[in-house]
Amino acid sequence: MQTNAPAINDISFIIRHIIGYENLNALEGYTDVTSDMVDVMLAESGKISSEVLAPLNKIGDNLGCTFENGVVRTPPGFKEAYEQVNSGGWFSLNSDTDYGGQGLPLTLSTAVQEIFDSSNMAFGLIPLLSNSAVELLSAHASNSQKDIYLPNIISGKWATTMNLTEPHAGSDVGALRTKAVKDGNHYKITGEKIYITGGEHDYTENIIHLVLARTPGAPQGNKGISLFIVPKFLINEDSTIGQKNDLRCVSIEQKLGIHASPTCVMAYGDNGGAIGYLVGKENEGLACMFTMMNMARICVGVQGVGIAQGAYNQARDYANNRVQGTRPDAKGKKRPAMIIEHPDVKRMLMDMKSKTESIRALALYTSYCFDVSKRHPISEKRIQFSERVSLLTPIVKAWATDKAIKIADIGIQIHGGMGYIEESGASQYWRDARITPIYEGTNGIQAIDLVNRKIVRDNGKSLFLLIEEIEENLYNFSNLENNKFSDLGKLVRESVNTLSRSTVFLLNQAGIDLDLVESAARVFLDILGSTVCAWLMLLQAGSCEKLLIAKNLDPLFLESKIKTVKHFLKWQLPEVLALEKILLEGQNDLSLVSKKDFDV
Amino acid sequence: MQTNAPAINDISFIIRHIIGYENLNALEGYTDVTSDMVDVMLAESGKISSEVLAPLNKIGDNLGCTFENGVVRTPPGFKEAYEQVNSGGWFSLNSDTDYGGQGLPLTLSTAVQEIFDSSNMAFGLIPLLSNSAVELLSAHASNSQKDIYLPNIISGKWATTMNLTEPHAGSDVGALRTKAVKDGNHYKITGEKIYITGGEHDYTENIIHLVLARTPGAPQGNKGISLFIVPKFLINEDSTIGQKNDLRCVSIEQKLGIHASPTCVMAYGDNGGAIGYLVGKENEGLACMFTMMNMARICVGVQGVGIAQGAYNQARDYANNRVQGTRPDAKGKKRPAMIIEHPDVKRMLMDMKSKTESIRALALYTSYCFDVSKRHPISEKRIQFSERVSLLTPIVKAWATDKAIKIADIGIQIHGGMGYIEESGASQYWRDARITPIYEGTNGIQAIDLVNRKIVRDNGKSLFLLIEEIEENLYNFSNLENNKFSDLGKLVRESVNTLSRSTVFLLNQAGIDLDLVESAARVFLDILGSTVCAWLMLLQAGSCEKLLIAKNLDPLFLESKIKTVKHFLKWQLPEVLALEKILLEGQNDLSLVSKKDFDV
Repeated sequence: MQTNAPAINDISFIIRHIIGYENLNALEGYTDVTSDMVDVMLAESGKISSEVLAPLNKIGDNLGCTFENGVVRTPPGFKEAYEQVNSGGWFSLNSDTDYGGQGLPLTLSTAVQEIFDSSNMAFGLIPLLSNSAVELLSAHASNSQKDIYLPNIISGKWATTMNLTEPHAGSDVGALRTKAVKDGNHYKITGEKIYITGGEHDYTENIIHLVLARTPGAPQGNKGISLFIVPKFLINEDSTIGQKNDLRCVSIEQKLGIHASPTCVMAYGDNGGAIGYLVGKENEGLACMFTMMNMARICVGVQGVGIAQGAYNQARDYANNRVQGTRPDAKGKKRPAMIIEHPDVKRMLMDMKSKTESIRALALYTSYCFDVSKRHPISEKRIQFSERVSLLTPIVKAWATDKAIKIADIGIQIHGGMGYIEESGASQYWRDARITPIYEGTNGIQAIDLVNRKIVRDNGKSLFLLIEEIEENLYNFSNLENNKFSDLGKLVRESVNTLSRSTVFLLNQAGIDLDLVESAARVFLDILGSTVCAWLMLLQAGSCEKLLIAKNLDPLFLESKIKTVKHFLKWQLPEVLALEKILLEGQNDLSLVSKKDFDV
Repeated sequence: MQTNAPAINDISFIIRHIIGYENLNALEGYTDVTSDMVDVMLAESGKISSEVLAPLNKIGDNLGCTFENGVVRTPPGFKEAYEQVNSGGWFSLNSDTDYGGQGLPLTLSTAVQEIFDSSNMAFGLIPLLSNSAVELLSAHASNSQKDIYLPNIISGKWATTMNLTEPHAGSDVGALRTKAVKDGNHYKITGEKIYITGGEHDYTENIIHLVLARTPGAPQGNKGISLFIVPKFLINEDSTIGQKNDLRCVSIEQKLGIHASPTCVMAYGDNGGAIGYLVGKENEGLACMFTMMNMARICVGVQGVGIAQGAYNQARDYANNRVQGTRPDAKGKKRPAMIIEHPDVKRMLMDMKSKTESIRALALYTSYCFDVSKRHPISEKRIQFSERVSLLTPIVKAWATDKAIKIADIGIQIHGGMGYIEESGASQYWRDARITPIYEGTNGIQAIDLVNRKIVRDNGKSLFLLIEEIEENLYNFSNLENNKFSDLGKLVRESVNTLSRSTVFLLNQAGIDLDLVESAARVFLDILGSTVCAWLMLLQAGSCEKLLIAKNLDPLFLESKIKTVKHFLKWQLPEVLALEKILLEGQNDLSLVSKKDFDV
């Protein structure tokens, strides 16, 4: 039943017609990126996804990782697959060529990540972390640290981890207690970290732990946190692997999903202290870690896209093959029907398809903004797009992952009774997806980050700039010749207006009642997510219209895309109206609710 | 972390103030039902839920059922718990006293079912089926069949199953192929049935399978199906247990959840044919089975309520104990905070609480309607309420179960990282709940049943009668003295208006395009579900207002209930506006979508 068909056509369409090669080529270092090259890359990664990763997905779920005497073993076949995919350079697409990376845009790395994740999300986690660690080290490590670690991480020889959470310090990272005491040119680290993805495994010869800790006398909270490189095996002067550091995996968690990804409890410094090397300055570690986290947050959104596509593929194939009931044939006579022909199943599949394509566009566009923020020749543009990435990161992370769960849920439902049987594989997407709104900052934290740091802090400047651009697009769109979609443009315009009003409301409230802003944050994030996705979907319909006239692309794809855009706008955007009503009228009463109201 | 606190206060409040003892006592046979008796019953069942069933919930999930040499063993402790709870008469509350039942209203049985399911949903399935089978046999079996089977099923000595599904016949029951050939005073049954809950287990000395099959030459489809009693062990003339029938459990399924409930593949007639006894007439079996199914559908909705309450209990307790971040104290100084104090967590908990209380009211009210339909002294009332039960059954089944999953999902999210660790138990509610929108007719089937059989068939008569009653209540409500909630009444009135418009739209479309009606069915069900629940919630706020003035009930409960009603109406009802927009504008395009649109 497990099927895999990465959405190569759709990815290729979005990169070509929504992002545009001319725009990618205008960025420094990306002048050589061509559609031919990208299409080969998508096809090749699609093959790996279908042939190497898909067959391992259920094995990983069924057998999971094992932990024995401190050793973690990944499920059969995973280590070999890691080596095979890594040897093709697939994990270092957007890393710096100076350290052995491919020097390609994040846009392409995101495309490939989705393709891999659509068949095996658990497999992708260690490469995801490496990619994010490369961002961190490139931005904050010393040159000698870069020389030691970057080539080995980029080559996939060494893996990395992110060590933030402690049993009492989750969303509140500032409460962490792990200690770092200076000892010559390094620090001695002691403490316990939990939920460490890939804290121990058998993929690589070394694991580079990036650990947040406190030096003696450091200020309380977020401002007293420092970041350390803590290798599993120390590195000798001659760059060879040296002795084992004073750290160990204590246990691995039994999780709801992503069984093939080991989630470790880590102990540092049982025997006097693990050796760690400061990255950046003391007490500035959290900002450094955020470089890694922000990249990881985008990647988690991309995981959502992958899961959504995987769940959609499987549900569609099931609906295409499952006979139940009848439909009239051309002459009105009843004949046995595939369930895909029944209106309610068609609706469910269209919900899956349209939501999936919307979050894909969101993830690719955000990645493109990241590329602009790094490589645009004009510094103002870089700053502007850097702010846009900041604005969109919590949307990609939270909106895409929530939608992924919903999409996987519909996938189960389309399977009927079979969806509840683990053998079908439909439920694995749902279970695997469920981590994505939790890790790298819960979706609630994303919403609060969005409203407090990305909207209120700059008084909505960055968002209003985006709204302006959308409005300009809408204006151009409404002036298209032969515009068949003026009603669709109107729908998006209504949402944009709602978004503007909601933003003003939020900014006003921020001066009055910060609690209200926090309780409204999630609703606001959903308004923004729907609207940005609607804009990106509308742009696609516009491109399709032009391409249909030009007759240079498969008309079936274009017509199907237009139907999908229509479905998205007509079924998703009404929610924005409802959310505005909640935002404006639902908040005040919540402030009157207290702890004891929940105990009656 | 696993906690249990059944919602006894809320159940007691709804029975007393929304249903009313005077109304229950007006029904034949229920004159003796008093609040004292019911409150003792709720307290006692609450004790069983917390002390007997809750401790088994995780054991059941972890160990599941085992299958070896045709024998199914339920998880350790389950058989003993079945015997203990059964011996208290808890599984036969609403069964006929003539056959050993307690002769109580379904309303009370529903209350107790929720209380049990809130701590262990998987445990409740075999009693749920017995209850539903008693309905079937009471309505359709011959007197001698009743004499043989009812006392033993009602006493819990024998269990029952529902055998509809075959590998190629799920939602399309009419496609089933199991054969029944007449052989003297019985039939010989041969065929395979799947997804048979409790098809084999160790709880009872006998299992009475209720099996749909086709006699030779029977008409095709639904009109050629007959219903048979097929006991695991045949019954001797002297009522003792006789020889094993020709049937067996082939295997049990590995499922996403409810691991403690064996889901069996059953083979009938490997050795010439299992002996079966016709219930009712040949070819009229599906209608008989619907008597069982309709009861089971209400009970599945109640499972949703139970899961919702269980998930809420656990999330609330976690939020009450988990320290993260700070909140200002009375003097504005920061102090460590429980996460329940953070606005976004408060919002999530209030979403859980308000949705849970809304589906509880819906389930209890529908059960009360069932009681009226059976026991009201005036036959017109019985008929009217029988139609109302038909109308509300798909709403209880589909709306309550969808909400249950959403509530369990929020429960996971409140736990943060801990929610993804199976040990926490938060994810078990979510996994267990996921079957409820699938079995006893998928929620898509419920929606189609609602619009085709319950709305279009009687031209909306039964629904408009309900709408009239709601409008009358709203009118009375707006005339209450000192009415503090006129804004709430207005919200419900808007929803009722939307519901009326949507019903008219649907009835008009039914004459034009049946496909459109089917693709709109799910949206319509959600409009109706939200509106009926909003009405039942508003009535509660009204009662609270009166009771606060009368000062004869805990004001904390009443004030918290009013806040909960407000939250429900303000956060749930805006969705109705969005759904109407989808209903009116989203459908036409879907009819243009074809199979090939999903393959591009």
